[in-house]
Amino acid sequence: MSFVWSDGRLHQHETVPLSPRNRGLTLGDGLFETILAVNRVALWRDEHLARMKHSAAVLGIPFPQDEIGAAVDALLAAGGENAHVLRLTLTRGATARGLAGESKAPVVLATLDPFDTRLVGQPATLVTSAVRRSAGSIAATHKTLSYADNIAAAREAAAAGADDALMLNSAGNVACTSIANVFAVRGRHLLTPARDQAILPGVMRGVLLLHAQALGLTPEETVLTPEQLTDADAVFITNSLRFLRPVSRLDGNAIATAVSDTILDHLCGLAAGLCQRDFRA
Amino acid sequence: MSFVWSDGRLHQHETVPLSPRNRGLTLGDGLFETILAVNRVALWRDEHLARMKHSAAVLGIPFPQDEIGAAVDALLAAGGENAHVLRLTLTRGATARGLAGESKAPVVLATLDPFDTRLVGQPATLVTSAVRRSAGSIAATHKTLSYADNIAAAREAAAAGADDALMLNSAGNVACTSIANVFAVRGRHLLTPARDQAILPGVMRGVLLLHAQALGLTPEETVLTPEQLTDADAVFITNSLRFLRPVSRLDGNAIATAVSDTILDHLCGLAAGLCQRDFRA
Repeated sequence: MSFVWSDGRLHQHETVPLSPRNRGLTLGDGLFETILAVNRVALWRDEHLARMKHSAAVLGIPFPQDEIGAAVDALLAAGGENAHVLRLTLTRGATARGLAGESKAPVVLATLDPFDTRLVGQPATLVTSAVRRSAGSIAATHKTLSYADNIAAAREAAAAGADDALMLNSAGNVACTSIANVFAVRGRHLLTPARDQAILPGVMRGVLLLHAQALGLTPEETVLTPEQLTDADAVFITNSLRFLRPVSRLDGNAIATAVSDTILDHLCGLAAGLCQRDFRA
Repeated sequence: MSFVWSDGRLHQHETVPLSPRNRGLTLGDGLFETILAVNRVALWRDEHLARMKHSAAVLGIPFPQDEIGAAVDALLAAGGENAHVLRLTLTRGATARGLAGESKAPVVLATLDPFDTRLVGQPATLVTSAVRRSAGSIAATHKTLSYADNIAAAREAAAAGADDALMLNSAGNVACTSIANVFAVRGRHLLTPARDQAILPGVMRGVLLLHAQALGLTPEETVLTPEQLTDADAVFITNSLRFLRPVSRLDGNAIATAVSDTILDHLCGLAAGLCQRDFRA
């Protein structure tokens, strides 16, 4: 079952009434979060909401904390025990003409849709996208509604028969994929592109960096070249819905996946601790 | 008077019914055009629609030509003789989950709002934005709904008390502003950043490049450094609503505006020929 939250209440309508001047719709002017909801728990809820709140401050969009909390609570109650994707959207709302327009009436919209947890941990193939991310781009470094570049990259990957697209930054170094962060294991080092590498700072990326030492790995936020992926001991990608996906192929070449399974087990264990669900079943 | 086109018809409702999964709203996945409409004429209509059609093909969004033509016609008829901004929005519509999703049902939405033609030709002050545009970005090079970077730049400018933001590309060269293209006149040379400089290829930019020689200027699509703006004979910005704005200040420094008025007169003459309205009155 799917549910929608709009105008401050829960429903199952096919449409919501929206101003044709809502800047989420007209200019991609807003933020979103995609959260895995299981057993009435929104996994890493505080981390997701903190990221949105921080980005809202950077973008100058008011953050209606109470309404967002109410939306999440209502959708979790509606979703019950089953696994769902909880998608939270915050737009600047409508403003006077002009890109710089201020809004005192941001709009909160949220949806809940079934999620198949068998997708957790499945291996992924990647191809390198022609789209380049700029570290000086708000859209590249915050989870805004302006996802055109990620979409173009994802469509390149789909056209090539791959699962996701590896996106490089302007300098030609690794940034992230269209929907996930990238990690490489080399020896006992867990490498991932640093915040200044035009990445979207993923919640699961943050969780893993915090737990790396418990896994016997030294986390390093660094510059990662495409060549360092090719000869790593393991490459994997992380996000909030599928936790960790070992990368089996990059641009057609086989990639090592040592230790990925151990790390996935650890992340599944953390998630199980939050929502009492076994993700490896 | 303002008007809205949605679901294939004209109305004046405050809201439109929209799927909460419409990707224009959730992912900035679509395109738009902003067209000056005067005297029942959409200025440079063919050029605007050709740009949208081309970008739709690149993004893989179906282009419903008949519906778009009907929307423009209906809004022009509603607007009558007065000047309006006709804003045309095409979204991919809703798809199955996943960024790469295909849609067979794109959504056309359009609005018509009054425009004060006294804004045409007014001088502008610019400040250089911290946001950098990537030539390898779909959002930077097509008029997509993913405008977060332009919005951030425009808000920087507004916070600094300037009219618009100069946006540089990853290499530190001039790209465009948040809503306009940039030109510099040096002697008889009319310089503007080339298509590979992370610019949005504006309709008015194209019009001016076509008419440069009639103005005794040699058009050059090139690499333009910020320093070349500072010591140019004139710097101006162009877009479809305000035609040409002489740049009077860049980051607080006075900028020369020689010949800008002559070029503006020429563009106003072209527009007058299309819609029988004197824009210099």
